Amino acid sequence: MHLAVLRCEIGEQILCYASDEFEYLCKIESISKKVAICEIIEQKECEGNPKYNITIFQGLPKQDKLEFITQKLTELGASSLVPFESDFTIAKPNANKIDRLNKITFEACKQCGRSLPLQIENAIKFNTMLKRLNDYDLVLFANETNKKITKIDFSNAKNIAIIVGSEGGFSPEEIKQLKYKQVTEFGLGSRILRCETASVISCGLVSYILNN
Amino acid sequence: MHLAVLRCEIGEQILCYASDEFEYLCKIESISKKVAICEIIEQKECEGNPKYNITIFQGLPKQDKLEFITQKLTELGASSLVPFESDFTIAKPNANKIDRLNKITFEACKQCGRSLPLQIENAIKFNTMLKRLNDYDLVLFANETNKKITKIDFSNAKNIAIIVGSEGGFSPEEIKQLKYKQVTEFGLGSRILRCETASVISCGLVSYILNN
Repeated sequence: MHLAVLRCEIGEQILCYASDEFEYLCKIESISKKVAICEIIEQKECEGNPKYNITIFQGLPKQDKLEFITQKLTELGASSLVPFESDFTIAKPNANKIDRLNKITFEACKQCGRSLPLQIENAIKFNTMLKRLNDYDLVLFANETNKKITKIDFSNAKNIAIIVGSEGGFSPEEIKQLKYKQVTEFGLGSRILRCETASVISCGLVSYILNN
Repeated sequence: MHLAVLRCEIGEQILCYASDEFEYLCKIESISKKVAICEIIEQKECEGNPKYNITIFQGLPKQDKLEFITQKLTELGASSLVPFESDFTIAKPNANKIDRLNKITFEACKQCGRSLPLQIENAIKFNTMLKRLNDYDLVLFANETNKKITKIDFSNAKNIAIIVGSEGGFSPEEIKQLKYKQVTEFGLGSRILRCETASVISCGLVSYILNN
């Protein structure tokens, strides 16, 4: 159980998270350098958890951008992050990075008051992603060639996928396949956003619109 | 004039920006390591420039967060970034950093297709900021204690200020002064966002809503 505190004293009340859907109001009984013993005073549903299931399918970005994306998506209420490889991705998948990303989402959870971390998967192939899109009520596709801002109909959508490409975007064949899947294309305005900005802003917008 | 290109050859057409409101379609006449001579074929208004004046008043954040904020606000259509010192800011203003931030906004402009860079000012005092709020039609205040998402009335707003605190937020006295100025408070949901996330997401939301 992780203590969401910095400086605390015996008798003080603190909020604790245990990676379940609750937050625990606890009173500190004893405290040492590495361990604090607390009494649970109240268990209640953690308000910071997402109410909707938003999965970001993110084209594998270069450098440490997945770390940035992990932190921001946790704050902004995404449930899952699934990186994928496509024709124009340059970065190579690295399964060893998952531990680091999990640590980042845990840290971000503590900071933003959320108990359930972002679920981060190993990178999948574009075609595997296509098949998984059937699991969602609404699939949004951030198409950078679409410069118009689109109004999206969210009624009845509880499971939402957002697809954002890597730096190189998508090949014409991939775009054809996405359109065949009847995804909802949307634009993010007249400027070309970096891939990490696009995924973070898309999630932030959807969370804001849905009060997620 | 900066060339918005990486690899280019003689005869090729490229888009150029000159920190004015235009973009220039140019044909490369000659090219050397540091200089390219181009003929202007067409001058047109740069679509990537913001249509609204959005100023972000940002409580001075720690570390290199201003660099991150500068890059993202450029992409997301802010016009100006004004850092300010308030009761709970820990970071110290550093006028030497402006050059670095200007370089970052220029780079971001090239990448996102915008010709007018973000205007970045030296840090001002909280009280100076208060006085300057009179210059705006609409002043939004991202209040982290406000967990409800607010619908904002943007009708007739062309000059918009967004106030986001630093890591420590605002003192009760400062919040009182802001309320006295009749700013429009808004919440960003049930999670506490980092200060850099709050300013970037606020700007992204406003730009999206206004099709900026």
